[in-house]
This record gives sequence, C-alpha cells and structure tokens, in this order.
Amino acid sequence: MVKSQNITWHDSEVTKKERQEKNGHKSVVLWFTGLSGSGKSTISVALEKALFERGVRSYRLDGDNIRHGLNNNLGFSPEDRKENIRRIGEVSKLLADAGLITLTAFISPYREDRDHVREILEDGEFVEVYTKASVAACEERDPKQLYKKARAGEIKNFTGIDAPYEAPEHPEIIVDTEENSVEEAVEQIIRYLEDQKVI
Amino acid sequence: MVKSQNITWHDSEVTKKERQEKNGHKSVVLWFTGLSGSGKSTISVALEKALFERGVRSYRLDGDNIRHGLNNNLGFSPEDRKENIRRIGEVSKLLADAGLITLTAFISPYREDRDHVREILEDGEFVEVYTKASVAACEERDPKQLYKKARAGEIKNFTGIDAPYEAPEHPEIIVDTEENSVEEAVEQIIRYLEDQKVI
Repeated sequence: MVKSQNITWHDSEVTKKERQEKNGHKSVVLWFTGLSGSGKSTISVALEKALFERGVRSYRLDGDNIRHGLNNNLGFSPEDRKENIRRIGEVSKLLADAGLITLTAFISPYREDRDHVREILEDGEFVEVYTKASVAACEERDPKQLYKKARAGEIKNFTGIDAPYEAPEHPEIIVDTEENSVEEAVEQIIRYLEDQKVI
Repeated sequence: MVKSQNITWHDSEVTKKERQEKNGHKSVVLWFTGLSGSGKSTISVALEKALFERGVRSYRLDGDNIRHGLNNNLGFSPEDRKENIRRIGEVSKLLADAGLITLTAFISPYREDRDHVREILEDGEFVEVYTKASVAACEERDPKQLYKKARAGEIKNFTGIDAPYEAPEHPEIIVDTEENSVEEAVEQIIRYLEDQKVI
C-alpha cells in the first residue's frame, strides 16, 4: 500500500480519553448485582433513560442482549456461569473504552467473578451497585414467577433459594430497594456519578 | 420496590434509533476482511480517526483488544477460529445497537463465518470491506514478518500460504490496496457511508 508521506493523522488511534472529552463525561461500568427481583433491571433501565436525557452516552447489558447473542453457547453449569460473567466483564471493558457508561444487570452472585471484572478495569472504572433486598422481599415481588418455580423444585440452583448469593463487601453504591423507590435509586446513582465527576 | 405511579419514563428502554438520532448518524458494522498485510488495520485506524474528527461515534475491534480480552480463552483450532469470529460479530452487534459505527479488522478468511455475522445484523447494517491485495503483494510488505515465518514453516495454517482465504463474492466495498493509498481508501469508504446516508 502506498503510504502517504505528508500526513500523520492515520498513525494514531483514537484514545479513550479523546472519546470521553468529546462526550463530555467519563466512562465507567455500573455493575448492578443483587438477587433476582431486587430491582437491577428496573433501576438500570430507568437510569439509562435518565442518563440519555442528560446527553450522556451509555449502554446496558442484560440477559436479553447477552444470553441470546454473545453467550448463547453457554449453559448454567458453574464453569459456564463463570464464563458468562467473564465475557460480560470483557464487553463492558470494550464499551468503557468506547467512551460509554456501561450498565450491567446480572445477578452475578459470586464475589470472585465480580472482583475479576474489577481487576481488568482501570482504577475507579468499576462501580459496584448492590441492589439490596431480602430474599423474602424479592420472593414476594417475584415478577417472573421464578421463586415460585424454584420452591417447587422446577428450577435448580436458584440464587437465594438453593444457591448462594455473596453480597458485595465494599460496593461503591448500595441501593436499598425495600426502602427506596426507583426514582430515588436513580437519583442516588446520578448523585454518585456527579460527586465522582464522572458526569 | 416502591414503583412510582406518576411517571412512566423508566418503563421504556432507550432504542437504537434514539441513539442514532442523538449521534446524528446511523450505526453500521464496517467489517474489514483480507489477507494479513492487506491493510485492514492501517485503513481502519485512519478511518476511525477521520470519523472521529467529523464527530462520528465509532469503535474499532482488532486483535489487540479482542484476543487479549474477550477471546483470550480461544486458540487457533478450526472451532476456536469460528468462535472467535462469532463473538466479534456479536460484540459488533452490541456496539451497533449502542449507536456506534463499528470497525472490525480481522482476516476472517471464511465466507460462512462472515455471512453468519451479516445474518445476525439488520439489513444494511453489515458493510463488508474487502481489502484486496495479492498474496505476493502482502508477502512483500510483510509488516510483522509473518509470511517469512509461514514460509519457513514456523507458523502453520497461515492464510494465503497453507490455509485458504475465501474472498467476498459481493462485498459492499472493495479497496484495492495495491493501487490506492490509505487516504484514498479512507475517502472511498467515507464516500460510501455518505452515499448510503449512514453519516
């Protein structure tokens, strides 16, 4: 290929910092973790909308766009669950590199798996958001009737029933969804992002 | 969780269309394919920079950010190569859904694998960019000394030497990198994106 001698702009890649400057905000990963029914999806959808309306570029990863696509060759064995979270972490890293605030909404019950994602990201880039609610509260909501099925033995290894949930020890944000509304949770997270000068 | 009764904004997700409108351009996947040394990386880096300077949001996937991250558990067996391309396709789909013009720079020698990516994307979203150059030309450039190693038998199954490259039959764009400079290739692709009203 004939390389031009008189310009140099094609030799350098666009950096994450340049993208963030153009967007007018930093890019972090808001990693929602919590029991099924604890509010991860609802809050992250609302937050994404609120961020969008402020002109913030963000993207949300959830079961719908991950399990049917990138991770459609993974099942629910311990190895596959681990690989599921690993891949989501790696995609989050790419999205953050692309300048987007990334929201992920997965139970992600194991501390080790979440900590691995924290490790592959830069300092301050991983924002663990713990949607806190008791099993009893989540079971009462049971929006997808999953607890009912788990109690009936139709679903095995269900987090909170017959599989463990390891709550974060030092999450950046704890959203108590038994006490707070969706709006309050969204406001709490936005306040955090403002305080940290992310947005 | 207490759901607010008086607002509805949190019930709907941000759509791809809304993101595209905010960005002021559509989001497609520019899938570069061609022999090692045919110019995929050089042209895609230059194109990304040119798009960035026009205010277009884009992101580039290449060996550096994929093989060391998401696909670091894949080797070079036929199955792993297929899975490599499949995952890149799925991530491209997510990036396009996020409103970004996605550039991918991988040899991706098999028609079937590329066609699979085309299928998972919406009509018109997959833009196959064939960086065309003869094996002889690429071997003469040999920027990473890979052809030399392949000829010496140090690398097996090297595309163009002892593994096939299946050229696209109907690529959206053919960039002849034996005839055109990097700038000309970038201009050609930008013209295509303008003609198709992508940007």
